[in-house]
Order: sequence, then C-alpha cells, then structure tokens
Amino acid sequence: MRNLQPLAVKDVALNKGLLSERMRVIREEVIPYQWKALNDQVPGAEPSHAIENLQIAAGEKEGVHHGFIFQDSDVAKWLEAVGYRLATHPDPELEKTADEVIELLGRAQEEDGYLNSFFTIMRPEGRWTNLRDDHELYCAGHLIEAAVAYYEGTGKRNLLDIVCRFVDLIDSVFGPEPGKLKGYPGHQEIELALIRLYHVTGDEKHLKLAKFFIDQRGQQPHYFVQEWEKRGETGKSWYAWPLEYQQSHLPVREQTKAVGHSVRAMYMYSAMVDVARETNDVELMDVAKGLWRNVVSKQMYITGGVGSQEYGEGFSTDYDLPSDTAYTETCAAIGLVFWAQRLLQVEPKAEYADVLERALFNGVLSGISLDGQRFFYVNPLEVVPEVISRRRDHFHVRPTRQSWFGCACCPPNIARLVASVGKYMYGVEGNALYVHLYGDNTAEAVWAGKNVTLRQETDYPYEGEVKVSIEAPEAVDGVLYLRIPGWCQEWNVKVNGEIVTSPTLEEGYLKLARVWTNGDTIELSLAMPVMRVRSNTLVRETIGKVALQRGPLVYCLEEQDNGANLAALILPAESEFIVEFEEELNVPILRGEAKRYVSNTDELYTTAEPKAETVTITAIPYFAWDNRKSGEMLVWLREG
Amino acid sequence: MRNLQPLAVKDVALNKGLLSERMRVIREEVIPYQWKALNDQVPGAEPSHAIENLQIAAGEKEGVHHGFIFQDSDVAKWLEAVGYRLATHPDPELEKTADEVIELLGRAQEEDGYLNSFFTIMRPEGRWTNLRDDHELYCAGHLIEAAVAYYEGTGKRNLLDIVCRFVDLIDSVFGPEPGKLKGYPGHQEIELALIRLYHVTGDEKHLKLAKFFIDQRGQQPHYFVQEWEKRGETGKSWYAWPLEYQQSHLPVREQTKAVGHSVRAMYMYSAMVDVARETNDVELMDVAKGLWRNVVSKQMYITGGVGSQEYGEGFSTDYDLPSDTAYTETCAAIGLVFWAQRLLQVEPKAEYADVLERALFNGVLSGISLDGQRFFYVNPLEVVPEVISRRRDHFHVRPTRQSWFGCACCPPNIARLVASVGKYMYGVEGNALYVHLYGDNTAEAVWAGKNVTLRQETDYPYEGEVKVSIEAPEAVDGVLYLRIPGWCQEWNVKVNGEIVTSPTLEEGYLKLARVWTNGDTIELSLAMPVMRVRSNTLVRETIGKVALQRGPLVYCLEEQDNGANLAALILPAESEFIVEFEEELNVPILRGEAKRYVSNTDELYTTAEPKAETVTITAIPYFAWDNRKSGEMLVWLREG
Repeated sequence: MRNLQPLAVKDVALNKGLLSERMRVIREEVIPYQWKALNDQVPGAEPSHAIENLQIAAGEKEGVHHGFIFQDSDVAKWLEAVGYRLATHPDPELEKTADEVIELLGRAQEEDGYLNSFFTIMRPEGRWTNLRDDHELYCAGHLIEAAVAYYEGTGKRNLLDIVCRFVDLIDSVFGPEPGKLKGYPGHQEIELALIRLYHVTGDEKHLKLAKFFIDQRGQQPHYFVQEWEKRGETGKSWYAWPLEYQQSHLPVREQTKAVGHSVRAMYMYSAMVDVARETNDVELMDVAKGLWRNVVSKQMYITGGVGSQEYGEGFSTDYDLPSDTAYTETCAAIGLVFWAQRLLQVEPKAEYADVLERALFNGVLSGISLDGQRFFYVNPLEVVPEVISRRRDHFHVRPTRQSWFGCACCPPNIARLVASVGKYMYGVEGNALYVHLYGDNTAEAVWAGKNVTLRQETDYPYEGEVKVSIEAPEAVDGVLYLRIPGWCQEWNVKVNGEIVTSPTLEEGYLKLARVWTNGDTIELSLAMPVMRVRSNTLVRETIGKVALQRGPLVYCLEEQDNGANLAALILPAESEFIVEFEEELNVPILRGEAKRYVSNTDELYTTAEPKAETVTITAIPYFAWDNRKSGEMLVWLREG
Repeated sequence: MRNLQPLAVKDVALNKGLLSERMRVIREEVIPYQWKALNDQVPGAEPSHAIENLQIAAGEKEGVHHGFIFQDSDVAKWLEAVGYRLATHPDPELEKTADEVIELLGRAQEEDGYLNSFFTIMRPEGRWTNLRDDHELYCAGHLIEAAVAYYEGTGKRNLLDIVCRFVDLIDSVFGPEPGKLKGYPGHQEIELALIRLYHVTGDEKHLKLAKFFIDQRGQQPHYFVQEWEKRGETGKSWYAWPLEYQQSHLPVREQTKAVGHSVRAMYMYSAMVDVARETNDVELMDVAKGLWRNVVSKQMYITGGVGSQEYGEGFSTDYDLPSDTAYTETCAAIGLVFWAQRLLQVEPKAEYADVLERALFNGVLSGISLDGQRFFYVNPLEVVPEVISRRRDHFHVRPTRQSWFGCACCPPNIARLVASVGKYMYGVEGNALYVHLYGDNTAEAVWAGKNVTLRQETDYPYEGEVKVSIEAPEAVDGVLYLRIPGWCQEWNVKVNGEIVTSPTLEEGYLKLARVWTNGDTIELSLAMPVMRVRSNTLVRETIGKVALQRGPLVYCLEEQDNGANLAALILPAESEFIVEFEEELNVPILRGEAKRYVSNTDELYTTAEPKAETVTITAIPYFAWDNRKSGEMLVWLREG
C-alpha cells in the first residue's frame, strides 16, 4: 500500500490569502479566547471549569467536577492547536502557559497513569465501566493528539511522556489477551490518535492497540450489550438504533453504509484507513473505501457537511439531504477532512482531495465567523429565522453564530484543523511530490532525497492562477503532481514559461516529471467560471435547483443582499454572473440576474401564475455568511 | 347578525356517490368496529377500557381507570355518531345498545351530577384542580354533543337529562359570579357543545356558560398560571409557548394569529362564532373572522389540513407549510369544517363553503381508508417511507393507515362528521335556501314557510352536473342560492330547461328568486377541468410547484402508479390531463405526460444537466391514497 507523507505543520508557511488569514484569526483570536474560556474568564459565558477540573483532580483545589464528562478534551484540543501554532509561529509566552497546563495534567494524572478529571474526582471506582457513554477513551485520544502536536511543534516530550504512561495503562486494560477487557470507545477518537502516537514513538504496541479497537468493534458477544446488562439496563435507548449510534451495530469490516453519530463515524473511518495503511490490510482499506463511496455519493452535502439530522447528530439515509434541518456539525466536516487526508495518503486520487477541499473551504470554515469570535455548531444550507424560531424540528439550527457552546467541541476543533492546515497541502513519497491544495505558501520538503523549498504564489481559492517556484540547492529528479481540481474543466500549465502541450493526468493529478533545478517555475492556470451545480436526481431536496460554485467555493444568498423570501428567487437558465470583490467581507461575490416570483393575490391558493420580477441577485461564499446582519440564507436556488 | 339554519341530519338523505358511500362505511364498518374497540374486543389492538372504565365508575366492576384521562370522550363520540346514524338509518338493535351505554353513563354519574370515570375512580378529590391538563370540561363537551345528537336522532332525552344535570353542576362551579371558579377548559370543546345544548334546551344558562368560557380565557390574573402555582409548579413546560398551546396566551378578543394545538384552536374558533351569533357580538365575530383570514390565507394546506408541525400538534407560523413533516391531524381538518359551517351560518359566503368543502373532501376523508378499517391521524402531503423510517422529525408520519390508535380521537371524529354530513349541505333563513355542498341527496326543508323536498341528482364531486328538483305541494316564493364553488371558473345554469342568461351572484352564490312550484328543476353545470393550483409565493415549500385539482378534489401521485422518487417528476407547462374512471379505487383519476429527471452519473454533484425522460403520470384523489400498496406519495409536483 502506498504511504504518502504529509509535510509537517512547521514546514508549511501560509503567506497570505484565505487560509493564511484564517490561521491568523485562530492564532490571534481563537486560541487566546479559548484559553480564557477554559479558565472561566469570558464574561457572560457559561463557565467551562475545564482547567479547574484538572486542578481539583490534582488535589490543588477543593470541589466537584463540572461540565460534560468529556470536559478534559477541550483542554486537549486547545493544547493541540497550540502545538500547531507554536510550530508555525513560536511564542515563548504561550508556550510557557501551555507547559504549565501540561504540568497540571501531569499532576492530575494518577499514580498508575490514569488521566481523566471526571473519574478521578467523581467516580474513581467507575473507570472503564461504561465505555459506551463515558468518553474516557475519547478524552485519552484527544490528549494523545495534543501530545503529538505539541511534540512536533516544540520538540518537547512533556505531554508525550504523560500520555505514554496513560496509554501503557490503557494497553494493560484493553486487548485481545486473556484477562483484558474486550471493549472499545463509545466515541471513537483514540484509534486515530494511537496511530499518530505510533508515528512518533515507533512503538508497535500503539499500533496494535488501535487495530484492536477497530477489529473488536461490533463483535459478538457485543461489549456494549454486556456492559449495559451488567449495569442492569435493558438497552432501551433514546436512539432508535442504539448500536448504530456508535457504529457498533456490525463488526467494522461488515459495514457498508454510514450510520449514526457523524463525528464518531468520521473519526472511525479515518482510523480504519490508518490501520489498513500501517498493517497493509487491503480488506480493511476496501471497507473504508466502500464507506467513503456511500458518504460522498449519497450522504454528503455540497458544502462537505455530513449528518443530515439533529437526531443522534447523525446520518439519516441515502440521498436524504434536507437544507433547512441539516445538522452538518462543524466537527463532522472536520472529520471528513481527516478521513480524506488519510485516503489520499494511500491513494493519491484527486477525488479525495476534492472532498477534502470541499469540506475545508465550505462546511468547516462556515463554522467560524470572519472575526473568529463566533461559531456555528450546526451548518444548515437554508435558514429562515422565523421558521427556526417556531418549528421544533428547526430548533437546533441557529440563525447566527454563537460565542461559545455548552458542548464546546466545534470551536477548538476548527482551531486545531486550521492551525495545522499546512499538513493537508502536500504529500511526498520518494521522488513523487503531490500538491493537494493550493494557497499562497512556502513549504520545505525532502523530495527525491533532496531538500527543496516550494513556493506557491496564488490568490487561491479566489483566483485560479497558481505559480509554483522551486528553490533547490541541488537538482531534483522528481515527479511533481499538481492536482487538477474536480470542479475545474479548463486549465493549462506552463513550465518555465513554456506551455505544456500534452500534459499527463494521473488520477486527477497533472504529472510533471523532470529534473528540477533552482528557479524552475510552474504556472498552473485553472479556469474558475461561475458554475451551476446540480445534485443527483435521487436527492429530493434539490431537484430542479442549482447551487452556485466558483472554484471550490460554494456560494449562498443572504437576505440582506437579496430581500426576504429567498426561496421565491428563480435562476433563469441563461443568466450569467459577474465576479466582484467585496471589501467588507474581503471575498469575491457573484452578481447576476434572476427572477423573483411574487403572487398576484393574498390568497394561499390560486390557479394564476405568479408574476416574475427581474431582480439582480448577489451571492457570497457560503463560509462567509452571517457576518453582517442576521437574516435568511439559501444555498440551493430554483432554476427555471 | 344573520342566522341560517342547517337542515337536520335526519332531513337529508344521501342517496349515492362519494358522501353516501363514506356514510355507508361509517355505518357498516366504523361504528360497529368502534363499539368493539370500546369494549376491548378487537383482537391485536391495545384495549380501550372505555366501557370498562364506566362500569368501574358505576361501581359494577372492580379495578382502576385505564387509558387516557379523556377516555370517556371516545364513548361520547361514538354515541354522537350513533345518534346521527339512527337519524338517517334507524336500527333498533343499535339503538338498544346505545340506550344501554347511556344507562351505564347514568349509573356512572355521581349524585351531584358529576360524570367523568377517571376522576370518579382515581381522584374523586381532584375535580377541577387542573383544568389545563385534565380534560374534564372537554369530556363533558363531547357528552353534551352526544346527548344533542342522540336526542335529535331518536327523540330520546335519556342522555340529554344526564348531561343537563352535569351541566347544572358545571354551571354551579364556573362563572363570573363571586365564589365560582374563573377557569376554562385546557382543551376547548364544551363551549361549542353548550351552544348546541342551548339550541335544544333553550336554557339561557347554557349560552351564558359558553360565553363565560370564551370571555374568561386568557384574562389576567391567568387562571392556568394560578393553577400551576397552586400545584407548586413553575409553569415550565415541554412546550416553548405554554399558554399558546391552549390559545390562552391572550384574551380571546385580542387574538389575531392561529397558534398552538390546532384542534383546540378549531373548536374554540367555532365556539367564538357560535357565541357571537347567539349574542349578536360583532366584536367577537370580527375576531373570529380575523383568525379565519389568518388560517385560510396563511396557515392552511391545500387539503384543508391545518397544523404544520408535530410539536404541540399545532401551528408553526405563517406560510410555513412543509409537505413531508406536516401534522395536519384529521381532527383539525374536521374542526375546520365545524368552524367554516358556523361562519356560513352568519355570513353565507362561498369562501367559507369552499374551505369547508376543501377540508371535507381532502384532509378529512384522507383520514379513513376506503374500506373504513384503517385511519390516518397525520395527513402529510409527501411521503417517502424510507425517510419516515430514518428521520426522527418524520417519525410522527405513518406511511400507511393504522387500524386504531392509543389516542383514538380521529376515527370517532371522522365517524361523527361523516355520519352527520347532511347538515353541512344546506342553510335556510326565511325565504332564502342555500345549497352549500353538492352530492346526490333528498332533503326536506321548510322554505319560506312551506314544506318542500329538494332532490339533488349528481355525481359530484366527480362530475360537475347537478340537477336540483323541487317537490312542493304549495308554491314557494323563495330565493334559492346555489353555491358556485371557488374552484369553478366556467358554469351555467338552466331553470326548467331554460338557460339563465344573466345570472346574479351574491357572495359566490347564484341567486335564483322565483315562485317555485312542484316539479321545477334547476340544472347547474360546473365545468370541472383539471387545474394546476399554485400556492402563494410566500410559501417556500411549494415555490415552482403545482398541485393538481379537479373540482374540489386535490390529487396526488403514488409510487405504485408512477415509480419511486416522485420528487424527480416535472410537469411541463403544456402537458394536459385526461380523466379516467378507476374501478379498483372507484374514483376518477388523471393521466398526463410529464418528465422524469434522471441523473447521468452516480455522483452526488455535477454541473451536467440531468436527462429528462418523458413519462406518463397518474394522479389519484388525495383522499384515496394508501388504499393499495404502500409507497411514496406526493401532492406538490414541480413544474418546468
């Protein structure tokens, strides 16, 4: 199996443009804000108690645990983001703060390595008794990811040593060996974290434990069933399909359709690819690819959002993609990015990068306001504030981003993804260097055994011109693979100013094999017209509708540009769009002609055809909605 | 204020056609089946315990009360339906059974007149302590309606005497006088029942009590708030707008928008018209008309269903009419018929009759299967069984009618409406005789002081030809008003074979003033083409869509005629329909050409336009859906 290595976060410097700007916001706004939130210093916000919980667990403060049972994971995700941030932008003061938190984690860790403030404080005797619900392994997973990121970002082993001790304990408790528990997490996360740990430690034990959790899941006798029987419960659940909720309804290798809680699903599917890659397990890889096909061809929104319903924060069924009641949790889109990246490592096909890009630039970035101060947990594709306020089945949708959440999973998840976005841009394997994502950056890589600096100059995703320059002290006999995005139907490429007349495409990547020397340039020109995208006709919601897309950016209409009742706007087949740059939002917007249906009557029902007024409509990138006034928003426009 | 009198149920004999056939099914299937259900004799069905509860309350059996707190109302609704049934089709055996039930009710009645098996058995000390939730006045209302119907149908006062004693008690407990409770029912129903009782008894006390309940509702200090404070509750409710649920958020006269539980709303709005009419209260009538405009111009489905959401079984907000998650309880459509009839009594405008007819032939009749053995509680306008099975916000929708319900309000409500449908057809006031509804029937009326027999010969609602003959021993100097349905755009009328060349229309009624003599005939011909109906463009759900309607019947598509994925069918502007008679369903069906969108790809998103295949589509009357195989159903078709 192939194994492309992403570049390290520290080796990719985003220079300017959208991703760079989003990283800046994470760095300057989100990480400091979250630090305050973890310390209960945000006026008006519900206190997190996350740091306090650790202080209590460390015996340094009196009190009980507050917040969710997985409150520790907020600290872990913050530390992970800090690790990435320090990798690209060292900051001694922040590093000192992080080191202090890590020391606190060390003091909160129990003698035997156990580390979870809830159980240490509240139920020391209850460890590992309710894997389905209690998130112990989930929190451990986030700590592990934080430790790896912090180690990679700072070179410090302080958190790594703490989590290795914890993992030693977990490994002594869980596993196929007699006497060990045959359990696995209710919320997957530790599996992919253990693989990351394995990459750093090289310790086979970490790989084996991840593989155990994957292989054991859903096996009979069913661990969660045995657990609930031990607790004297009947297994009756608030959820109609109790075992599907955590993707434990079947052994993992028998799963073919994405079901249940979508974030759990994404994390598990990611780990499946990891385990398959590391153990050369073709069968497991095929299962992961089958689930991928199900998700991307039947259950994914055009924004890269997944999870069609609030119920179980999860999948509903194939082709069921309601715009207004969509759940499409920010964390699930982030999970889809994780999964796509892992598939790309094994199979560098543009299809995976296309989805990664779709999710990143749309369903992930929509989760955070332009100023970095407000967040969406739920990312719908249609919003009518009045309906949200009166329809129970819309109550989970918010018409505007919130400053923080009781369940604060999404904001720190965005922070850690965006802060590490450099590692999603490239893949290297021997003499092959893949460019998966475009964005103005400078990257350091070892390519065909040589140190090279790649410089991308571009306004991507706003413009399709990308100039790649190679700085190489020594000539590099390497193959450069430049992704031709799935959305792009017309493109050309020049090498050192000369057009490449018969370019070779391989799985959606433009293949440029050459001995590269210092100063070589590649100019890729991706035509970026405004496109009308249609869903498969099996999607009831979007029959007869189009979404506007330009480059990887899905567009939407907001009430403040287009008036209320956006649903009555009809896009004629012949209308064309112009692209303008909008200063306030700092994004390219689209303007074009449409019709607006207006009734001739106050009655509800009539045989008369409505009037169609000609109007100019304005569309903005989906990720940038709700940054001005609150109001209606719509992605899918009727065509007619 | 005007006051048209409906004809009595016994005076209208339905001879043949849809309404006659539905009455037959009620008579032959539903009433006997419900009797078995009330006696727990339906194999496989959850026992009702309704008769048993009364036996226990009467001290004739040991045990506790089972079922809902309003279980008695099932018995009352059955007796009411029996009253109507005996009015049109005497049946000594059934009457004997009913008399025995009435005797049982008499024995279950307490010394002081109180009659409610739940409180008598379970909480004798708890009477009138939780009006908001406990349905005592609601059950009383249904008993009163039953008593009136039974008296009118059989001439017997047995149930009337029982309820008059009960009402005397209620009147001694509630009222504006000092020392009486200032409460009113949580579920409105007794208000309209008391007006019916007043018509039979002529006792002003009954009218005054009804008026009190209406006027007192929502006044400050708020009775329900005082009640819950007495119970030591905070008023925190499962419902986001606790006082709106029962339309007690404002004094009745200040209400302008329909909110809350839709059946309660319909019953209350009906009673408001009753009280306004009986007390010549123009202000109250104007409030009722304002609420009517809100409902019919902003919150009513094309089927006459009301109640857009399952949450609170209620209204959501203006123009919010989702097809697939619609609640549109059968009882609410029935309530809309009640309300429309009362408005017609005061203002004979075709608008009211149009809505009455729309609800009756669509949203009410859809509640019962053609064979009378299965019922819908919820009447959606779009069903995809797979989605219903996997989407939590669709779980209230059933893909197929059920044989009985735990909360069995709808089946007996259909029974009592359909069994009494004759009284919705005519209105008489002095020398004016209004024909509101068409259907083959023979009616006895006193018109301009003379006894006349009117005979309608017609296949309405399947055909638009209606022949009315007058049998009158004496000449009648009367004005005949024939409703020209709102859906009808082309019509003509002949009197004694001569076309009326300059017909006069008055509020949607054709006015024929004449001295009528025996044998006079009127031939009304209502053109009944297939119509494409559009919603107001403020209804997001149906923008760009049409519903097919012919005469008063709304049509729908079923999967078994049209294949799966009905949403992908597109109706071209130019396609025409032919009408055929379908033998199995015994209804006229529509056939026409449409297009079906079929994707060229297995991918979810594409810039390619889908293929459009030409297909023949078949539409059947909405009320007749789900009488063959289960599958998808769709009312609103995309046009394009």
